[in-house]
Amino acid sequence: MELKDFSKDVVSRVNAFMENYIKGFDDEAKTLKESMAYGLLLGGKRARPLLVYATGLALGQSMDKLDYPASAIECIHAYSLIHDDMPEMDNDSLRRGHETVHVKYSQTVALLAGDALQTLAFEILSDEKSGLSPKAVASLVRILSSKAGYSGMCGGQAIDLESEGQHIPLERLRVLHSKKTGALIRAAVLMGAVASENVSESELKALDEYAGFTGLAFQVWDDVLDVIGDTAVMGKTQGADISLDKSTYPSLMGLDKAKEFAFECAQKAIDALAGLNIDTTILKEFALFTVNRDH
Amino acid sequence: MELKDFSKDVVSRVNAFMENYIKGFDDEAKTLKESMAYGLLLGGKRARPLLVYATGLALGQSMDKLDYPASAIECIHAYSLIHDDMPEMDNDSLRRGHETVHVKYSQTVALLAGDALQTLAFEILSDEKSGLSPKAVASLVRILSSKAGYSGMCGGQAIDLESEGQHIPLERLRVLHSKKTGALIRAAVLMGAVASENVSESELKALDEYAGFTGLAFQVWDDVLDVIGDTAVMGKTQGADISLDKSTYPSLMGLDKAKEFAFECAQKAIDALAGLNIDTTILKEFALFTVNRDH
Repeated sequence: MELKDFSKDVVSRVNAFMENYIKGFDDEAKTLKESMAYGLLLGGKRARPLLVYATGLALGQSMDKLDYPASAIECIHAYSLIHDDMPEMDNDSLRRGHETVHVKYSQTVALLAGDALQTLAFEILSDEKSGLSPKAVASLVRILSSKAGYSGMCGGQAIDLESEGQHIPLERLRVLHSKKTGALIRAAVLMGAVASENVSESELKALDEYAGFTGLAFQVWDDVLDVIGDTAVMGKTQGADISLDKSTYPSLMGLDKAKEFAFECAQKAIDALAGLNIDTTILKEFALFTVNRDH
Repeated sequence: MELKDFSKDVVSRVNAFMENYIKGFDDEAKTLKESMAYGLLLGGKRARPLLVYATGLALGQSMDKLDYPASAIECIHAYSLIHDDMPEMDNDSLRRGHETVHVKYSQTVALLAGDALQTLAFEILSDEKSGLSPKAVASLVRILSSKAGYSGMCGGQAIDLESEGQHIPLERLRVLHSKKTGALIRAAVLMGAVASENVSESELKALDEYAGFTGLAFQVWDDVLDVIGDTAVMGKTQGADISLDKSTYPSLMGLDKAKEFAFECAQKAIDALAGLNIDTTILKEFALFTVNRDH
């Protein structure tokens, strides 16, 4: 199956799973429930779930069992977007062409919805209905929490906020992004692998290397798009990073070098999979896609 | 050992564990790291860790292994306080006589510190160094996430915010508190039990009943203290709930009936432990303490 078709399947599958999961909750706090579903379901490419499914599937796991880690990581991503959009952070009123949660509801609701979506990630991950072994569940929680917390996404977000308005060296930019966005990309691949209950140490190592380079390619290309992209296609204001006087790969390396670097990273990601004896077509296509997208 | 001495041990033990845990992180995002430690360590009775230790110990588990679930639940409690204190929620500038996190740092930092502390709870819980079995870890994550999320603490907080300025019926108040504060009290006892790796279904049931009544006694007494307490002792403004025109047990039942109800709940908590063949002295003392405290 091609990436495009696989991606379509993933979007409808993971959306249905998450929607049903939230529907299963009682109605005691209706606004909170609604806002959680709104924040979770207002669109998005579901790149992280895609990596969970693609990796797990390559290692022989069923889509049904992969629904759990795939949805869990999307809950983490969604909570981080809700909180990032709030006035004390990026103060964005639009996300994927829709009102952000704090605009549609309130800051109070956005704060709580983000908090509850983070918790939901771990609730889904530890749900006995997944049929995953306790060993896999414990590993999945370990991976997701270590990549989403201080050492990963939250730490990266903090470094990003501290770095606004300053020029930071390339090495610091790389640390920032490896935490802020790279950590969850790595978590997605590792979670798919661990959820397969059928991954060797050497496979895990290769997949982790793949994920590291893919995350980097993704981020460098995001920075490139911010310079060359078109607002209508991207759904956010082009040049937003420049107007905040942020250090980016193009601003530190120059645009052409940054493009070249992104392509190199995607190639290294693909190379990392070379020794594996599993079908990594989708993963390879995804790495190429990261540097061939226009939004 | 008496409750008072046990409690002192718990406070110093769990504080040291949490402090060390955060010290173990890198210094890439120093302000975030500092603010997490600040929010976690600015005092507190550590009631939830105490219940984890007391229950786990009664069932034969070592304090060393209980450090993990005890600290994890305190991270959840601490994150909820940081976010509750923020301007979009209760807008409190003091907590236990110290500046709240958003006042000492900023709203941005408070938002992120709360987020990262929630993640930390699951990171600590799934830390392989605990030596807990994967089965116990998976159960612990299941308990903590289900009690901290929409169906528990976050849901209760949402109901509380919706209920401000309205008179709500007693049954709704009970639902509110069973979620907002009761859920984590229950989680603490259940986590101690599960972390023992040595608890029967009937013991779990009795302990859960104990925890339900203890949580209720705790909350009713909190409402009572808000009427009769003294600001200097309590560290928060007396009558705060009344000034927000909140429904409370005394406002709905009358002060004397509310006191009586709190005592009844504490007694029912103690009765629930009657059939157990383990040393529940500390748990019983704790239930009595909830309705004999002045802050």
